[in-house]
Amino acid sequence: MSEKIRVGILGATGAVGQRFAQLLENHPWFAVTALSASERSAGKPYTEAVNWRLDTPIPSELAGMVVSACEPNLPCDVVFSGLDSSVAGPIEEQFATAGYAVISNSRNHRMDEDVPLLIPEVNPDHTAIIPHQRRRRGYGRGFIATNPNCSTVGLTMALKPLADRFGVRQVSVATMQALSGAGYPGVSSMDVLDNVLPYIKDEEEKMEREPLKLLGRCDGERFEPLVLTVSAQCNRVHVLDGHLECVSVKLEKKAEPEEVNDAFRTFSGLPQALGLPFAPARPIVLREEADRPQPRFDRDTEHGMAVVVGRVRPCRLLDFKFLALVHNTIRGAAGAAVLNAELLKAQGYIGA
Amino acid sequence: MSEKIRVGILGATGAVGQRFAQLLENHPWFAVTALSASERSAGKPYTEAVNWRLDTPIPSELAGMVVSACEPNLPCDVVFSGLDSSVAGPIEEQFATAGYAVISNSRNHRMDEDVPLLIPEVNPDHTAIIPHQRRRRGYGRGFIATNPNCSTVGLTMALKPLADRFGVRQVSVATMQALSGAGYPGVSSMDVLDNVLPYIKDEEEKMEREPLKLLGRCDGERFEPLVLTVSAQCNRVHVLDGHLECVSVKLEKKAEPEEVNDAFRTFSGLPQALGLPFAPARPIVLREEADRPQPRFDRDTEHGMAVVVGRVRPCRLLDFKFLALVHNTIRGAAGAAVLNAELLKAQGYIGA
Amino acid sequence: MSEKIRVGILGATGAVGQRFAQLLENHPWFAVTALSASERSAGKPYTEAVNWRLDTPIPSELAGMVVSACEPNLPCDVVFSGLDSSVAGPIEEQFATAGYAVISNSRNHRMDEDVPLLIPEVNPDHTAIIPHQRRRRGYGRGFIATNPNCSTVGLTMALKPLADRFGVRQVSVATMQALSGAGYPGVSSMDVLDNVLPYIKDEEEKMEREPLKLLGRCDGERFEPLVLTVSAQCNRVHVLDGHLECVSVKLEKKAEPEEVNDAFRTFSGLPQALGLPFAPARPIVLREEADRPQPRFDRDTEHGMAVVVGRVRPCRLLDFKFLALVHNTIRGAAGAAVLNAELLKAQGYIGA
Amino acid sequence: MSEKIRVGILGATGAVGQRFAQLLENHPWFAVTALSASERSAGKPYTEAVNWRLDTPIPSELAGMVVSACEPNLPCDVVFSGLDSSVAGPIEEQFATAGYAVISNSRNHRMDEDVPLLIPEVNPDHTAIIPHQRRRRGYGRGFIATNPNCSTVGLTMALKPLADRFGVRQVSVATMQALSGAGYPGVSSMDVLDNVLPYIKDEEEKMEREPLKLLGRCDGERFEPLVLTVSAQCNRVHVLDGHLECVSVKLEKKAEPEEVNDAFRTFSGLPQALGLPFAPARPIVLREEADRPQPRFDRDTEHGMAVVVGRVRPCRLLDFKFLALVHNTIRGAAGAAVLNAELLKAQGYIGA
Repeated sequence: MSEKIRVGILGATGAVGQRFAQLLENHPWFAVTALSASERSAGKPYTEAVNWRLDTPIPSELAGMVVSACEPNLPCDVVFSGLDSSVAGPIEEQFATAGYAVISNSRNHRMDEDVPLLIPEVNPDHTAIIPHQRRRRGYGRGFIATNPNCSTVGLTMALKPLADRFGVRQVSVATMQALSGAGYPGVSSMDVLDNVLPYIKDEEEKMEREPLKLLGRCDGERFEPLVLTVSAQCNRVHVLDGHLECVSVKLEKKAEPEEVNDAFRTFSGLPQALGLPFAPARPIVLREEADRPQPRFDRDTEHGMAVVVGRVRPCRLLDFKFLALVHNTIRGAAGAAVLNAELLKAQGYIGA
Repeated sequence: MSEKIRVGILGATGAVGQRFAQLLENHPWFAVTALSASERSAGKPYTEAVNWRLDTPIPSELAGMVVSACEPNLPCDVVFSGLDSSVAGPIEEQFATAGYAVISNSRNHRMDEDVPLLIPEVNPDHTAIIPHQRRRRGYGRGFIATNPNCSTVGLTMALKPLADRFGVRQVSVATMQALSGAGYPGVSSMDVLDNVLPYIKDEEEKMEREPLKLLGRCDGERFEPLVLTVSAQCNRVHVLDGHLECVSVKLEKKAEPEEVNDAFRTFSGLPQALGLPFAPARPIVLREEADRPQPRFDRDTEHGMAVVVGRVRPCRLLDFKFLALVHNTIRGAAGAAVLNAELLKAQGYIGA
Repeated sequence: MSEKIRVGILGATGAVGQRFAQLLENHPWFAVTALSASERSAGKPYTEAVNWRLDTPIPSELAGMVVSACEPNLPCDVVFSGLDSSVAGPIEEQFATAGYAVISNSRNHRMDEDVPLLIPEVNPDHTAIIPHQRRRRGYGRGFIATNPNCSTVGLTMALKPLADRFGVRQVSVATMQALSGAGYPGVSSMDVLDNVLPYIKDEEEKMEREPLKLLGRCDGERFEPLVLTVSAQCNRVHVLDGHLECVSVKLEKKAEPEEVNDAFRTFSGLPQALGLPFAPARPIVLREEADRPQPRFDRDTEHGMAVVVGRVRPCRLLDFKFLALVHNTIRGAAGAAVLNAELLKAQGYIGA
Repeated sequence: MSEKIRVGILGATGAVGQRFAQLLENHPWFAVTALSASERSAGKPYTEAVNWRLDTPIPSELAGMVVSACEPNLPCDVVFSGLDSSVAGPIEEQFATAGYAVISNSRNHRMDEDVPLLIPEVNPDHTAIIPHQRRRRGYGRGFIATNPNCSTVGLTMALKPLADRFGVRQVSVATMQALSGAGYPGVSSMDVLDNVLPYIKDEEEKMEREPLKLLGRCDGERFEPLVLTVSAQCNRVHVLDGHLECVSVKLEKKAEPEEVNDAFRTFSGLPQALGLPFAPARPIVLREEADRPQPRFDRDTEHGMAVVVGRVRPCRLLDFKFLALVHNTIRGAAGAAVLNAELLKAQGYIGA
């Protein structure tokens, strides 16, 4: 324990914060030594401050830990931020200024011109912007790194092998997103029972913007987004966890269906090569049944860290259609951030 | 009552057959005088033969009516067919041969080269093929007319005003379809609770094919389909009634968003001009809220006979995106057939 | 219209308030002339102030009506109170003091020793306490009358014919209550999806207490509760509307099953005799199928104003077991209050 | 592996059969060496014969195993029966006659006068009837042992510590049972969405009968049931797994609430003493929160092998009320049978 890197959780009582607490239990590299949340929770033991909504118990070493306010005096070196976007922006900057590595799931700094937006299997080299960020912002040892929106993760991981092998020019995507994506209490049961909510604030914009940065290039001083058009339509459906996405893509190079399947099936990235603890053995799992993936049955594939792809078939309009499923609160949020932290440790940005 | 046209229901105990029974209660033009179903049900009073699943009671005048076998000796002149596609093909032909007007909701004859596939607001002139059909098949007074698949109705009605005013070239559509579309017992609760089923057998093919015939032309001897590319992705979600569709369209002529809204808002067709009993006052209802239409709140608009459109906005990939909602068992099935029968009566094909 | 009694709605933007607005549209005796709600809503047209959640549109004559604050200067003579219990107590007293007839759905005054707790089919004579209440509280023309908790209504209406004919000594009841009973937004979808919530604050206490007052006697000066033991266990299930209750009863007199059925089947009360507008033709509807009542199929029986009873059978422990279903927001809340107001008008307490 | 006891699964493709396959993977004492099912499945590899509906993958060692017909020539010594009750009776007898130990989840032989109905924590001594059964039926080494109905397991385990310490005289129970209890495809989604089904065929009878045998005595030649009255009301709710039961009990001896809590909290049985592999550390887990147990959050307690009890409180009618939750397909079915088999091995009835 004494040799593990000390990490804190910002927004530890929220939906993403609870996932951080759950996923970091027994992590081989990181030990949670600080929990922070709003004024209302500060000073209480975690078990009293939190309305725990996960189906595993509160990690025993955190149950009695006293929750602090979100101020940059936490006994740790890295903070995982699950803060609400209404407050995350300045708080994350304060922590970075104070020398903390800030691994954020919040949207606020994702598109900043000097902040990496990371999926370790997609653009691990974008961390090269960090020295530039530190210089530009005067952060010292601190920095901010972010992961994308939950639906963006599913889409972009599925696009990555196609972009690498065939090039991707156009994407049309319609999502059926899970309720947990709205946080807690989130969506009223009276709104979604026997219903679909065909609007999620700002979600389509994020899905149309973030993949370009993720699939683009970084030269250490700036990002060059990929030239790619994405059109998204986002819906909330009556599912607890797991965002399912109907994707159509237009490729630069002509491809046979079997080549597309093969690109999905054989995809692997740096986290797999490095053997990072949270790296799924197969970052993309291809299902060949006619009716998969399905949220309830497939969201936990590879402990929720794989994107499950299926129904790859030609599209009359673009080139190919397929489905992609991402566990929105694991691979799409807290697990994404943990894998980012592992990558950054492996690259020497934290813990060195 | 004595002057009403006598109609029968084929497949009267099934999900669509029950809707026919419900919707035809107190119809001003039609009186149900015959109910037919499979051997298993024949000879029983309707109330015993049917496992009634609608939330209004069985129409009192049908409750005691004895169910017949599906043979063309029913005491009526028109039959509404809610038969399963595994048996509908030959039975419908037998009835047409015997002189019945067959108004079918089944898929079997929809794409026949001499059978009209009708939405009265979209292509009421396609009934002109009927004399040709009668001659070609030797049907005498009988004929077959069909309505489209439930999801096609929602899509095609929404496309019609755009096709008329701007021309439509390309359509991408992803659906979230209701459970009642699978009939009864249909989808197991264990399959769909906390889940989405991303595959509906043959549904995408129907959605990619039927709109072309519907939006095409008929010269009385043949159909000329519209030159249009449709790409569909169909899903089953945890909703009782109401198919919600995410649509993107590429138009032939450039249009401003307000022109598109106006096309939806002002759309009207022949059923409205004729004042047909089942014609909705507004065949398309445009919602301007950010989060509508929603299945539970909007599916019953205009007694389930309107298609509700919303979230009209530019598309980065094609030209416009929008949502369309159709009550799948009313406007998308039984109600569609009833409106077809009303059109055919108004045009003199039945009841004259 | 000019001869109708002018009524206002307190808490008009809440869940119960919306039901009042819906149910009072086109009421033959009452015209809504005032809407009031919290400071936040005051001054706005109703259509802007309300997040309308019912599946019929906002009544057109109310859509543009400006919402007032809940102060006793409303242009009406009767107020229907759907106020939250955190504020209802003193506000209702202020209105009564100012001369308004207060017809309340809130819990605050239900058990007051001089306030009638009413179900018109059960204890219409309890209104005789009103003159005493007026004198005691110095209310002048004003007064407060209340209806019971939603689950109490279903239970007590089902008990009434048994109490009348056989006497009732002991009751055990376990409920499966609908989500709408918790108001809006109420229960989070993340709490109730694939789940049951086996606790509803204060609900068991209300069910164990209110039936005794309702089934007891009133001599015009005080209430004498029935000697009756009720034990309740209350649960929230994944149903939109309709509380289903599993009831066991011990009777004073031995009864045959068919006598119990007959008591339910033939039950009728003063509202039926008076032909009150909201009185269901059959206050109790007995279903004889093995598997009814069911919330989705039976809650709207008699426009939601009947209690539907079924599965009457002997109980090994007490004497009989049966199911009772009540539409919790109609018969169990807003409709209950409207019927109370109709009774009070028929008895001359309001509108004279 | 070679030293493990060879077991087969009868009805291996059904809902309970799949759970057997899942739970027996890597069992320390048992190795699945035979899978059998109906004619339709016989001859196919398991992976083709089964419509696998669990959220873990098919055990790899079973995926390719060829399914046999249900005839008593399987290469194993013990069979777990998940057969449908329409066929289980004679098939199980054939296997017992042929010398197999039949560990059955089916209802057919539960109440036979020479067949043990077992919950290892409740009545492990009832296995003493087996020699008598063998003699009486001429079974040789074979025998039949059964576990109770799923809802009975939850109820009876919760009653056991009360019966031991205080005596139990009367029980009233109302259940809210999960969909998986109806098998697959089981309940139609159209029946249960936004609904409760207040009837489960034969379920109330089983709950009123089986606990008496379970809590009674066995002298090796006959069973003497406990003198106890149980009244049950059974409902199906919109939950995937986990039967929740509202229980009221009348005790023989007066008890304080804290004594009742203590009886639950400290309960342990023979499986715990023997350290059987499937024995939960705590057969009853007492929750002290106001709103627990809840199916989704608590059904997996102790890998689904514990009964979770909560809301212990006085009852106005009997003595105490509480909730009990049982994972119906684990502790209430397949897991129950596996624990029975473990007990029987420990007692020397199998594998010796």
